[in-house]
Amino acid sequence: MQPLVGLIMGSKSDWPTMEHAATMLEKLGIAYEAKVVSAHRTPDLLFDYAKSAESKGIQVIIAGAGGAAHLPGMVASQTSLPVLGVPVQSRTLNGVDSLLSIAQMPGGVAVGTLAIGKAGATNAGLLAGQILALQSADIKKAVDDFRANQTQTILDNPDPRGESERAAK
Amino acid sequence: MQPLVGLIMGSKSDWPTMEHAATMLEKLGIAYEAKVVSAHRTPDLLFDYAKSAESKGIQVIIAGAGGAAHLPGMVASQTSLPVLGVPVQSRTLNGVDSLLSIAQMPGGVAVGTLAIGKAGATNAGLLAGQILALQSADIKKAVDDFRANQTQTILDNPDPRGESERAAK
Amino acid sequence: MQPLVGLIMGSKSDWPTMEHAATMLEKLGIAYEAKVVSAHRTPDLLFDYAKSAESKGIQVIIAGAGGAAHLPGMVASQTSLPVLGVPVQSRTLNGVDSLLSIAQMPGGVAVGTLAIGKAGATNAGLLAGQILALQSADIKKAVDDFRANQTQTILDNPDPRGESERAAK
Amino acid sequence: MQPLVGLIMGSKSDWPTMEHAATMLEKLGIAYEAKVVSAHRTPDLLFDYAKSAESKGIQVIIAGAGGAAHLPGMVASQTSLPVLGVPVQSRTLNGVDSLLSIAQMPGGVAVGTLAIGKAGATNAGLLAGQILALQSADIKKAVDDFRANQTQTILDNPDPRGESERAAK
Amino acid sequence: MQPLVGLIMGSKSDWPTMEHAATMLEKLGIAYEAKVVSAHRTPDLLFDYAKSAESKGIQVIIAGAGGAAHLPGMVASQTSLPVLGVPVQSRTLNGVDSLLSIAQMPGGVAVGTLAIGKAGATNAGLLAGQILALQSADIKKAVDDFRANQTQTILDNPDPRGESERAAK
Amino acid sequence: MQPLVGLIMGSKSDWPTMEHAATMLEKLGIAYEAKVVSAHRTPDLLFDYAKSAESKGIQVIIAGAGGAAHLPGMVASQTSLPVLGVPVQSRTLNGVDSLLSIAQMPGGVAVGTLAIGKAGATNAGLLAGQILALQSADIKKAVDDFRANQTQTILDNPDPRGESERAAK
Amino acid sequence: MQPLVGLIMGSKSDWPTMEHAATMLEKLGIAYEAKVVSAHRTPDLLFDYAKSAESKGIQVIIAGAGGAAHLPGMVASQTSLPVLGVPVQSRTLNGVDSLLSIAQMPGGVAVGTLAIGKAGATNAGLLAGQILALQSADIKKAVDDFRANQTQTILDNPDPRGESERAAK
Amino acid sequence: MQPLVGLIMGSKSDWPTMEHAATMLEKLGIAYEAKVVSAHRTPDLLFDYAKSAESKGIQVIIAGAGGAAHLPGMVASQTSLPVLGVPVQSRTLNGVDSLLSIAQMPGGVAVGTLAIGKAGATNAGLLAGQILALQSADIKKAVDDFRANQTQTILDNPDPRGESERAAK
Repeated sequence: MQPLVGLIMGSKSDWPTMEHAATMLEKLGIAYEAKVVSAHRTPDLLFDYAKSAESKGIQVIIAGAGGAAHLPGMVASQTSLPVLGVPVQSRTLNGVDSLLSIAQMPGGVAVGTLAIGKAGATNAGLLAGQILALQSADIKKAVDDFRANQTQTILDNPDPRGESERAAK
Repeated sequence: MQPLVGLIMGSKSDWPTMEHAATMLEKLGIAYEAKVVSAHRTPDLLFDYAKSAESKGIQVIIAGAGGAAHLPGMVASQTSLPVLGVPVQSRTLNGVDSLLSIAQMPGGVAVGTLAIGKAGATNAGLLAGQILALQSADIKKAVDDFRANQTQTILDNPDPRGESERAAK
Repeated sequence: MQPLVGLIMGSKSDWPTMEHAATMLEKLGIAYEAKVVSAHRTPDLLFDYAKSAESKGIQVIIAGAGGAAHLPGMVASQTSLPVLGVPVQSRTLNGVDSLLSIAQMPGGVAVGTLAIGKAGATNAGLLAGQILALQSADIKKAVDDFRANQTQTILDNPDPRGESERAAK
Repeated sequence: MQPLVGLIMGSKSDWPTMEHAATMLEKLGIAYEAKVVSAHRTPDLLFDYAKSAESKGIQVIIAGAGGAAHLPGMVASQTSLPVLGVPVQSRTLNGVDSLLSIAQMPGGVAVGTLAIGKAGATNAGLLAGQILALQSADIKKAVDDFRANQTQTILDNPDPRGESERAAK
Repeated sequence: MQPLVGLIMGSKSDWPTMEHAATMLEKLGIAYEAKVVSAHRTPDLLFDYAKSAESKGIQVIIAGAGGAAHLPGMVASQTSLPVLGVPVQSRTLNGVDSLLSIAQMPGGVAVGTLAIGKAGATNAGLLAGQILALQSADIKKAVDDFRANQTQTILDNPDPRGESERAAK
Repeated sequence: MQPLVGLIMGSKSDWPTMEHAATMLEKLGIAYEAKVVSAHRTPDLLFDYAKSAESKGIQVIIAGAGGAAHLPGMVASQTSLPVLGVPVQSRTLNGVDSLLSIAQMPGGVAVGTLAIGKAGATNAGLLAGQILALQSADIKKAVDDFRANQTQTILDNPDPRGESERAAK
Repeated sequence: MQPLVGLIMGSKSDWPTMEHAATMLEKLGIAYEAKVVSAHRTPDLLFDYAKSAESKGIQVIIAGAGGAAHLPGMVASQTSLPVLGVPVQSRTLNGVDSLLSIAQMPGGVAVGTLAIGKAGATNAGLLAGQILALQSADIKKAVDDFRANQTQTILDNPDPRGESERAAK
Repeated sequence: MQPLVGLIMGSKSDWPTMEHAATMLEKLGIAYEAKVVSAHRTPDLLFDYAKSAESKGIQVIIAGAGGAAHLPGMVASQTSLPVLGVPVQSRTLNGVDSLLSIAQMPGGVAVGTLAIGKAGATNAGLLAGQILALQSADIKKAVDDFRANQTQTILDNPDPRGESERAAK
């Protein structure tokens, strides 16, 4: 199946975070490709990837990186596809550096930034799905089902003490 | 023309920031509606707006707010349309509070967050355009033209001292 | 017994923090109900809860949430009951995001914010008690007794090396 | 009229912020007394004030201070009345120091903290009203009217460009 | 021996930090007393302690506290003895809250603030010694010896790989 | 008169802050010398100053600096006199950098750190006075008088609206 | 004269900061070229510039940028010449975002980061001079003269009150 | 072999970070000497080291320190050799204090600052190599080889799931 989403990250060490984007895309039935593309260590690959993504049929790019996280912004500089950025939690500053490096883009080149870490990766997959749902009834249904399910799960488990108390016994 | 983008903000005082999103949308030829919707002071309106946006033909929602900025996240909780959030620069904390209140969403409800202030508002308009360009050749051309123009402007003016020196004389 | 305090939180994972509010309420002999209500994943439930709390006899609402913590502010937007907010310590930013998302409310919709984490949850229970004590001699006595006890405990154990040294031996 | 709210602050220079609490209390028809009480420069006065407030008929204390803002917490250490704290925007750190000094109280002594600056002062007055409304139908009506009015004002002025554009002409 | 330094802290849980001040004072041969005095939970004790310290012969007070750390500043408000403050590392914010709550005192009431945590406690003991050395040749000699020793220890062990490599083998 | 306090700063541009230390010293009748000593641009002067201060009769050194503020710590490395550090408000980071550069000293070399900016400079002068008061009845009286006066000024002006309202008329 | 230093920046608006690097280079007699190269808006130019710099005879590159400042790191990814980065003070976050985006590079691609703003630009010029001085006796002499002069200027003007008092008269 | 790089650090406890600089220098075939030099505890040694480095043939100094990290700046104040600073991750503030203490140098004395922790130490070694490569074809080749290798390693391992999945099996 032709991948619709390009899921890239600066390093293999970002995978434990970024796999949550992959999981969400799979849950929504969206084909994607996952690849390590480092802004700093493989800049030519980054340029090739960003410039060729559209012609390969990619519609949304999700880019995760930590620290001085330049990957999402630099991808966005080379393509007019929507780019979503995931700040990976950094060792020293908990991801504040990653968040600011991704979110504080200058006017004229946009990155839609998600939360630091796992929640952000999950939501990057979800937001990619919401964007693609504008053109696909199937993806739209998958997104709506996911949302309805997560709502229902909470409604069915209103007692905060439930499981943990049982677990504690 | 049917608006494709809903541009909402928590207060009229956000307009000097959010009008840069409007300007970009106009530049890209995208119809939009602009409205004050306060998460805290008009919660029912917020719910009505979010729940009815899709059926009215809105495809992307841009929400701007400052301080404890709950508008983007709460809109996203009520619609599966893509929601882009703009942290408005706050009086006391320069927008750090706005940025964190918008970006740090939990997994399962996504907001694509842009930069604090004017640059973020501009980019929210641009990213909405990039999303809509996936379905519209006209918007795609407008986005590509905008990008090509801004690149050319810099290439044509490589000397940083240029204008300012002349202006200083 | 009719609950006087509504103790809500965005997720079951907030319970290890928020149970300290429950413990304090029990210590003060105040009936409460505890429930998971997610601003983002169950917004309709949030609205129902907030709008019906007063008519059910609830007098104070304690709401705990982490990250982009919108629950306390959104509850406060739907009820004129006093709302106390507890910033739950977040995984990535230690609760700074939670604190700012709860405390930095705009003028016109108020949340009384407590400290991040366990201390804040304990104090939310205590402050709810202090508010209810304005109308109840029993609760007032319970609050005063709690305070007198905690003071006396310190006065009775002035030596900082006491227990820990004995424990170390 | 017997004051129900004690409105204190560390310095006269806090008045331009704290008068917004006074304005709100007046709007809600709540009698209050306003006084400079410095935790650091008049500690004995602080103790007298805190210890005698309850017997004078005060029901809620609002305390505003900036920098190493100890006033709210130290008042709370001397009275079991509910204490609301307003972080005044500091000269050097924009009020981050004030916010943390007020909000991060240890478990056992509670301060309900509002936002930094004017919004926080306004909301301290409002939250005091919400607390007093539990015992007073008049104050409850005033609070509900205030809230309804502010909602209606936004609903009546949905266009963010409205006044500012007209003003600009 | 008459204690010259009063070493107080807000809670027994501060002892693992504050004992480093005690260790330094012992190393310098300075008599001290150590006591738990909580600004928030035993305010009357705090006042008594601060007001009577001078007449008891105390010459320097070291006060350690965490979070909304009011102890050093409130002691300083009640005595004209020099007060040194140690920000204890807090659970949620790593001691940033403690540091700002102690250091950011308003003009007119001074606290000499040391580093967050163990280093700060050690240095509070040392700075107390430096202050007392102005009047005592014995303490001056002890301070100078301590300083000379710590310098010599580094000069004698210039190789950073030394011990750790040996330890690793 | 033999100066008892050495008041040094990294640059002439620090004087508008540091003169508040001078003002306080004059108010307390304490002789001082004021000098520009830059840690980075005149390191040899810094070493000479620090090493010779004690023999010249200086008893306390107050050092003010901004940004990467190394002056107080480096003076403390060369003398066993008590060193008080004043973080001067920096252009870009409001003095957070100055505060951390001064306060976060490693164990073994101590600087008593005051607040950022004017308040800190005032308090450095005051704390120097409190230290010298341990040996001087005159300085002790001056400190106590200063403190009593500032307390009385507030007690005499309890109404926060007082002067400002009159001034506004 | 063949430029030895490439001085680039993301936007003309960075010139008021970056011209201080130019001034220093001129003071040291070092030929340079100044050019606007935007990482985000002219990524191809950035790549061309970085890849061709060495063959053109450039020996050090100084890159200034603000916000999500990717220019220095991306240049460093394309050349093995030493790259010095200057965080330009940003509108919303005072340059904290710029500093972290430049300094927090991953291991394997290095940027020597200077201070935020004017001081950093000045020092980038100076550090470039210190690097080039390793191969040039003329530049070494110019660097040493600059340093000796700035030291002498302070030694000649030890009184912090000097000029400002005279200026005030 | 005559060392070209002086690798100093404030304490033996900095070695686990700073050894990554040593590893890189070894990888590049650059002779270096490693030494503990504490700005605060051995200031005279620091001065001797900095003043004599050039005459000993050192060409670049790498200085690592944590907390109030004064070592890099103080070395730079005593030598016109290029100085690279590595902020060591501090116990309490994760290295934010180290980063600001090193990076925020005043105009006139420059330190090229690297990232906090291991990545910064690695890059300090690399940047020293890039500086020395301007004069040495061998070092230039080593730098280029290192860079080519790290690029190739990523190109050869594009699948982020690769090793970790295999490892997990």
